[in-house]
Amino acid sequence: MNDILTNQPVIILVTPQLHENIGMSARAMLNCGLIHLRLVAPRDGWPSERAGAASSGALDLMPEPQLFATTADAIADLNFVYATSGRLRHMVKPIYTGIAARDDMKARVANGERVGILFGAERTGLLNDDLMLANAILNFPTNPDFSSLNLSQAVLLAGYEWLSASDTTPPRRYDTIQSPPANMEEMNFLMTRLESELEQHGFFTSPNLQPTVMRNIQNMFRRAEMTSQDVQTFQGIISALQGAKMKKVQGNQG
Amino acid sequence: MNDILTNQPVIILVTPQLHENIGMSARAMLNCGLIHLRLVAPRDGWPSERAGAASSGALDLMPEPQLFATTADAIADLNFVYATSGRLRHMVKPIYTGIAARDDMKARVANGERVGILFGAERTGLLNDDLMLANAILNFPTNPDFSSLNLSQAVLLAGYEWLSASDTTPPRRYDTIQSPPANMEEMNFLMTRLESELEQHGFFTSPNLQPTVMRNIQNMFRRAEMTSQDVQTFQGIISALQGAKMKKVQGNQG
Repeated sequence: MNDILTNQPVIILVTPQLHENIGMSARAMLNCGLIHLRLVAPRDGWPSERAGAASSGALDLMPEPQLFATTADAIADLNFVYATSGRLRHMVKPIYTGIAARDDMKARVANGERVGILFGAERTGLLNDDLMLANAILNFPTNPDFSSLNLSQAVLLAGYEWLSASDTTPPRRYDTIQSPPANMEEMNFLMTRLESELEQHGFFTSPNLQPTVMRNIQNMFRRAEMTSQDVQTFQGIISALQGAKMKKVQGNQG
Repeated sequence: MNDILTNQPVIILVTPQLHENIGMSARAMLNCGLIHLRLVAPRDGWPSERAGAASSGALDLMPEPQLFATTADAIADLNFVYATSGRLRHMVKPIYTGIAARDDMKARVANGERVGILFGAERTGLLNDDLMLANAILNFPTNPDFSSLNLSQAVLLAGYEWLSASDTTPPRRYDTIQSPPANMEEMNFLMTRLESELEQHGFFTSPNLQPTVMRNIQNMFRRAEMTSQDVQTFQGIISALQGAKMKKVQGNQG
C-alpha cells in the first residue's frame, strides 16, 4: 500500500456542480485506495458539509482536497494527464479504454511519472480547452445508447482500474478458515462407502448400469469441491439415513 | 447487442433502503447495457418517483423492475447466482473477484445458463441466509481499510465487468475522422526539410553533434505520432518562422 500512497493518480474534478457528487467521488476514491483529490472551481464553493456526508467519512480520512482556479493550475505539477470523456470530440489524441489506461498508469507510475485524471462537470463533461491540455482521453466503454455515467461512477471506474493494476487477490479462492478442501483419499473413501451402502440397499436396480450411475454420482460429488468437514458431514448423513431406513424397516417388522 | 439483451445477468437488489440508490443502480445498469432489475421487498415500497429521478431516465428505458417478497423467489428461475459481499463470512463458497466473475459469467451465458447477481441492503449487505442460496460470492477487491461500496457503485462494477467481457473496443485508438496518421514518407520529408533549414540557419553550432541532435529531434517528432494534417501544419510553421527571421534580418539591414 505504501507506494500506492506515495505515487498514485491524482483525481481532478473540474467545476463539479453537486457537493453530493464530490462526496461520493471521494468515497469511491478511498474505496480504491486513492487519496489525492483536487477541485477546480467547484460551483457551490468549498468546504461542504453535504460532500462530507455523501463521502461516508472518506473526506475525513483523506488529505484535504486542494482547490485550484483553473485546470492548467491543477495539473501543473503532473507529467501525464488523462481526460475522461464520454463523447468523442474529433481531437487527435489517443483514446484509452479503462483497461488500457490501467496498464498505462501502472507503467508510468512505475517509471516515476506523476499522473492525473480529469473529470468534467456533471452537465457538460470536460470542455475542449480542458481536453486540449491532457495527453490522452480516457473513455470507459459503455452502452452507446445510454453512455453518460454519473460523475462519482466515472471516478469509481478510474479508481477500480487503478486498483486492479496492482491487486493480487487470486481471481477465485475459498475462505477456508473453517475447513480445508478434502483430498482425494477422503473423497474416494466416501464414494466407496456410498456405493457399497447403495448396493446393500438395492439402489442399483440394473447391475449393467451401475458403473454409469456411479460415474454420474462421482461427477456430482466432485463438482461440489467438498471440504474435509463436508465429507465428514456426508458420512454422517449416510449413517443417519441408514438408521432411518433400518428403524423404518424395524418399524415395518414390528 | 442482441444476445446481451436476450441473455444477460439479472441484477437483484435485496431489501434496498434508499430509492435514490435504486435509481442510481438502474442508471449504472443501463450504462452497462443491463436491463433486468429485480427488487426484493424494497423498504420504502415501489414504484418511486425519487428512483426515477435518480436514474436519469434509465428506469423509463428499461423493462419495469420485477418485485419479489423473498430472495428465493427472486432467483427461482436462475441457474447460477453470485452474491456480492464485501466482508468474508466464513462460508465455504467460491469467492470470485470482479475479473473472475466476468469470465465466469461470460462462459455461463455462452452455455445458455441464466445468471443473476445479488446485492444486499445499504446498511447490512446480504444476510447469511441470502448468501447461502448463492453459488458463489462476488467480492470486488477494494481498499481493506475502507472497503464499503455504495450500493449503486457495486452494481456499476458488476455491470462494468459484464460489459468488459464482450467489449471489443481497441484498448488504444485515435479518433481519426479529421486526418489519418502521417506515413513515414511524410515524416521523413518533414525531418529532411527541418534539418536542412536548421543547417542553413546555423542551428547546429557543433557539426560533430549534429547527428545526435537530429536523433533527439527525430525521437521527439516520432513520439508525437503526427497526422498528415499535423505534418502540413508543421511545414507551415517552418515556413512562417523562416519568413519571420528573414523579415527580421531585412529589418536589421534596413
